[in-house]
Order: sequence, then C-alpha cells, then structure tokens
Amino acid sequence: MEAFAADITAARGFLADGGTCGLKASGRRDVGAVISEHPATAAGTFTSNKVRAAPVLVCEELLRRGGGARAIVFNSGNANASTGVKGLENARAMQRLLAEGPGKAHRVSADGVFVASTGVIGVHLDMAKLATGIGALAPSRERGSAAVEAMMTTDTVAKTAAARATAGRTELTVAGMAKGAAMIAPQMVPHATMLAFIGTDAAVEARYLQSVLTAAVEESFNMIVVDGDTSTNDTCLLLANGAAWPDGRAPLDGSQPECSQFEAALRSVCLRLAQAMARDGEGATKFVEVHVDGAASVADARRVARAIVTSPLTKAAVLGADPNWGRIACAAGYSGAALDPLKFDIAIGGVQVVRAGLAMEYDEGAASAEMKGNEVRLSMHLHLGDGAATAWGCDLTPEYVRLNSEYTT
Amino acid sequence: MEAFAADITAARGFLADGGTCGLKASGRRDVGAVISEHPATAAGTFTSNKVRAAPVLVCEELLRRGGGARAIVFNSGNANASTGVKGLENARAMQRLLAEGPGKAHRVSADGVFVASTGVIGVHLDMAKLATGIGALAPSRERGSAAVEAMMTTDTVAKTAAARATAGRTELTVAGMAKGAAMIAPQMVPHATMLAFIGTDAAVEARYLQSVLTAAVEESFNMIVVDGDTSTNDTCLLLANGAAWPDGRAPLDGSQPECSQFEAALRSVCLRLAQAMARDGEGATKFVEVHVDGAASVADARRVARAIVTSPLTKAAVLGADPNWGRIACAAGYSGAALDPLKFDIAIGGVQVVRAGLAMEYDEGAASAEMKGNEVRLSMHLHLGDGAATAWGCDLTPEYVRLNSEYTT
Repeated sequence: MEAFAADITAARGFLADGGTCGLKASGRRDVGAVISEHPATAAGTFTSNKVRAAPVLVCEELLRRGGGARAIVFNSGNANASTGVKGLENARAMQRLLAEGPGKAHRVSADGVFVASTGVIGVHLDMAKLATGIGALAPSRERGSAAVEAMMTTDTVAKTAAARATAGRTELTVAGMAKGAAMIAPQMVPHATMLAFIGTDAAVEARYLQSVLTAAVEESFNMIVVDGDTSTNDTCLLLANGAAWPDGRAPLDGSQPECSQFEAALRSVCLRLAQAMARDGEGATKFVEVHVDGAASVADARRVARAIVTSPLTKAAVLGADPNWGRIACAAGYSGAALDPLKFDIAIGGVQVVRAGLAMEYDEGAASAEMKGNEVRLSMHLHLGDGAATAWGCDLTPEYVRLNSEYTT
Repeated sequence: MEAFAADITAARGFLADGGTCGLKASGRRDVGAVISEHPATAAGTFTSNKVRAAPVLVCEELLRRGGGARAIVFNSGNANASTGVKGLENARAMQRLLAEGPGKAHRVSADGVFVASTGVIGVHLDMAKLATGIGALAPSRERGSAAVEAMMTTDTVAKTAAARATAGRTELTVAGMAKGAAMIAPQMVPHATMLAFIGTDAAVEARYLQSVLTAAVEESFNMIVVDGDTSTNDTCLLLANGAAWPDGRAPLDGSQPECSQFEAALRSVCLRLAQAMARDGEGATKFVEVHVDGAASVADARRVARAIVTSPLTKAAVLGADPNWGRIACAAGYSGAALDPLKFDIAIGGVQVVRAGLAMEYDEGAASAEMKGNEVRLSMHLHLGDGAATAWGCDLTPEYVRLNSEYTT
C-alpha cells in the first residue's frame, strides 16, 4: 500500500470541478461536483445530530433506496440546515441541476446524485445563484483542486489524501478530499461540519463497502475534535466505480484475501483526511495526538482519548506548553470510561510524568519542551485491559475565540 | 422566605475563619475552617469524576458512617488529588489538626470533620505549612468573610448566599459560601472544583437532609458550566445543627408542612451560589441563562440546556453578540435529547428568531442588542412535552484561554 497526496480524481473514472456562484461574500469558490464516469456502489456516514441538514436527509434516502450512485453536488457558504421542507426541495433541485447540466453528457440521473452543503445554518439557499453555478461546472480529471477549494469554509489548507494498493494483479486507488476546521466533533453513525468525499476505482459490493467505511470512520473522523460541537451536516461519502476492475472479476465483498489491501488503503485515506482537519482547526497553533492504551475496552479507550482531546483546560495547557497533567487525568476521570485512579500512567511526548496515578520525579522543563513544537503527543495507559485508541485535535487559542465571535453577523 | 447576602455564620451556631499558610504563591488566604457549636446532621454531594481527590474520599466515608458532623477544614492552592495513599493520610491529618487545634475548645473530634481542597492536581500538600495554618485559625461569628476568601482560587468575587424562612413559629436560616471559576461543569452525584459549604440552624433528620440537598444540587450546581471540565474535587456540604430549634421539637424529616419553607430556602441558597460561579467564570464578560421548555422529560430539558451553555461556538457567539441561532440548534441536536427539527422555537432575550425549526423574519439588530448587555438570556421550546430546565454559564473569551494557558508552570 502506497500513500500519496492527490484529490478524488486520482481514482480512475472520477471527474471533479469547483466554481464560484456568489454564496460566499468573499467571492471564493463555493459550488462543486464530483462525477463518476461509471455507475458506482456507494456508502455513507452522516451526523448523529438530531438537527440534520436537508442534504443529509437526501443522501440517507438515496443510500436506503440503493441503486447506482453517479455523482456528488455540493456547496459551501450555506449549510441548508434548519430549512424545513423548502430546504429539502432545494437539495433535490441541486440533484436535478447537476443531472440536467454537467451530468447530462455522462448520463447522470438526478436520483444518482448525492448532495452536501456546509456554511451558515438556517438560511435558504439562493437557488438562482446555484443554478448558474452548477450549470457552469465542467468536471474533468484536471479540475480536482478546484473542487477541493469549493468545499472549504474557514479551512486554511486543502485536504486531500490518496492510497494505491494491489488487489490480486489489479492496482486499485482510493482517493479523497475533505473540509472542516470548526464545529468539529464528528460522531457519524453509519456519523462532523466536516465533508469528505472519497472515491475508489475498485469494484466493491455495496454492503461490504458500507461496513468498511463505517469501521474506517470510527477510528478516523469520529476520533477528531476541534471544539466539541457536532455539526448538523457532517457527511462522508464513498463511491466505488470499478473503473480499475477487469471485466468479469467479482467485486470485493469481504470474502477475498485482497480485501485487506483495499481496507488498508481506505483507512489510510480516512485517517490522513481526519488528521488534516485537526491540524487545520480554527486558530490552532498545534496538532495534538492523544493515545490511550490499557482501557477496559476499545469503546472506553475512545471515550478517554476523545475527552482529553476535547477538554478546554487541556487544550489551553497545550497552547501554553504547560505539562499540567492533572487536567489530563481530570478529563479521563469524567470521560465515563472505567478508570482506576491508582493505576494510570501519563506521558507527555517521551517524558513519563505519572506512574500508577501519582506524579513521578520528572523534569518539568523537558516535559514542557515536548509541548513547544507544533506537534504534541499525549499518552495515557489505564492498565485495565487491552482497549486502545487514538484521537486527534488541536490547542485552544484566543484566535479560535476571536474567529468564532466574529463569524456571521 | 427572605433571601439575603451573608456567609455561613449567618446560620446560628456556625463559626468560621480563614488564614494564610503559604500554599498559594500569591500570599493570599489559603486555609480555613467552619465549626458548628452543636452536633449537626450532614449531607453532601461530590464529583462524579472517577479520579476523586483524597478529601472527597474522606467526606464520603464520613457521610457513609453517619454520626455527628461538627466541622469543615479546607485549603485552596492545592487539590490533594491524584496523590494516592499519602494524599489520604494528609486529608486525615487535616481532620486531626482541626480537632486538636481550634476545634478543641468546641469538643470537635477528628471523625466529625469534613475536608475539602482546591487547587493544583498531583502535588502533595505541605503539611508543615498546613499544621501552622490550621493551628492559627480561630473560628468565630465575625470571621466568615476570611473563610470565604480562603476558599477562593481564580475567583474574582466572594460568593455567599443566605435565606431566612419561618417553619411553624421558628425562624430558620440557611446560609452558604462557595468558590469556583473554572474546571466547572459539576455533575455531582448525591455530584463540581466548586466547593460549597452550607449551614442551617434548623434541626433536620439526616436522610431527608440528603434528599433535599441532592434535589437542590440537581437544579443549581449541576446546571452551571464554565468550561465543561468536571473537576476531581467538586464538593457541596450541608450541615444542619438545630441551633434555632426549640427543645423537644422533632427535626424536619419531610413529613411536616414547614419542610417546604426549608426546601425553598435551601434551593434559593444553592441557586444563588451556583449562579455566582457562572457569573464569575474565568475571563467571562457575560452571564448566560439558557431556559429550555417543552422537552420530552426534565432529563432531556437538562441535556439541551447544558449542551447549549457548554457549546464553545455558542459561547463565542455570545461574546460577539452574534444572534447565530444555528449554533444553538446544533448544540440542542447533539445533546442526546429527543428533538423534532420541525418543531422547536428559539428566542434570544425577548426576540423570537426561530419558529417550528425555521428562521423567522426578525430584526437582527434587535437580536444582537439582546446579547450586548452583561446578561444574556437564550430560550428554546421543543414542543414535545412538559420537561423544563434552566442552565447558567458565561461567554468564552480570549482571556479564558490566556488564563488557562498560563496557570501552573
């Protein structure tokens, strides 16, 4: 398996484009599409927020109904969330606009189009602008970077990840692109506003595709936290179009030995896209990785890792390069996981600071030094079982507060 | 029932003092005690964090054993948390120091002394300093304000509340004092580092005392959030010494009609102490009240109110006086409570902004104006049932981040 940087068009048979239609006051790209040249199987994970945006409802319906997926149409600058029946109509109109516009040459039908939106909540989409914007898209192999830009809101960097693997004698590619910098605490249930669109040119049976996506999302997107606010629009879509598949060869369904290669490639892409979001958290100056080992269960390890990476006090300590491990222990203690206060160890980077629940004699300067770079690693061992998990986040900065106190109005 | 401002010594038979022993580098007061002149029944609620500080364990043991409570000894500047067996020994030594020192004249025995600590986690108490400090205390009716100061850490104001009620022909007083400005998201189970010490001169049967304290804490301390970090040391203690009770009259046990007077007084004191903490949240410029109505249950109403008051994005919007109600809807949606996205209403102060899940035509300037004062009221009606709850918090400011990135080292 080889990891490399590329957007979704690195997978064969995927075309993309992004344009500008005026949804963003800044005049940046705000509308885009991905088209698969071939019918694809599809899988998706969506926010567990009970206020689910209209495009999320449309995607869920499309997945439930099954059938060939052909495209994704999306916009930034407006979340189309808390917009009721009209919001749903607008999301469906986006499907038609893509099918009747740039999708026509590829025989895309409206009911094969996924929809995703990100931006302000509670405002109706300007469909006149979108009609013009979607109509002007011309998805191609070369325009992937324009599509990535069109997904971005407060993102400061484009987020893409790809991986190549060999399945039998066939080389398959998994390639994706994502956005997300705040309102990030994805808990997608077969579960951020993060958007991630991933394509593969493997042929993959739909039920298996969903199961491997769900598993990959659990340990990637669902393990990143910027602020603890779980969005109304989080969407991760995976399309498998079989463009790399030899004629007559059966699609991957979980039974073939080469499935492990495909799963590794998908995990790699999900993980790198997720980490890119944590790294680009609004106002963040540092990327934080929290590794938890020895929990009573994997679920408990996830609870602890997520609690630590979410804790405002721990995030502020990271900003200050303050090895105040009591905040880490405190977050673990309220995570809901089983924990013995006289068993756990804590390390800050390579400096162990706690053994069996008690402070060790350690060099505070050395521990602080481990927090001064732009990558901070915190680890905790609970000594209760075999459960392990890793979560990713960022520091809490005055800049995050400033950005989010000056956002909409 | 009459509410007034006074510390715990406003209840008859309660003495208090605070002093300085050098636990705080600042040289401010850091050690104190409360003594009841008469044996008291006691009730307590403590943090649900699984990393519980040594003094919390000592208090729980004392309550479990039952028997007459006589005093509270406490320090600030050091939480005596994550300190293991030595931490427990030190907490017990604090009991003895009080009994053998200032408690001696009042025939206080060590096993009648509650202990509470707040400050840095993971550092052993300096018992030589505490021995001198506790020994020098001289609790009296006049020294209550010194005791309140000795509880404070980053608190900028002293927090006290009292209430007077008439039970039959007897006037009873409930009076308390508290500290807390960060690491505040109390979830005390029969549940913050908030500390609150409350005394009453009513005679109250122990089991009833615990039940009314638990109920009062549920709707007061457990409904405030500064940052979402639930501390290792949260402690609320209530002592009832009967000093106002006529000889031969039975203690309140829940069966007497005048119990409602006592309960109202206790609720009033808990609520005002809790609100004082939210108001004094680290770096806060605004006090936020979130009222939720029409939830499927009271538990659901509490989930929604707490999620909104905890949401970093909502807190940042409050700082910016930005009526970005989508963040409120989003927080409600991930709270875990039942919610119909096409039913809920949202108001910012007196300006309704959402009806049946959709944005209304409203005056953004007026909504923003409702957020510009130092008290902001947000309300949400779910239209699902009768569950109602109110939570209190504060805005998120660059100053909170600065304070907490520069705390210990």
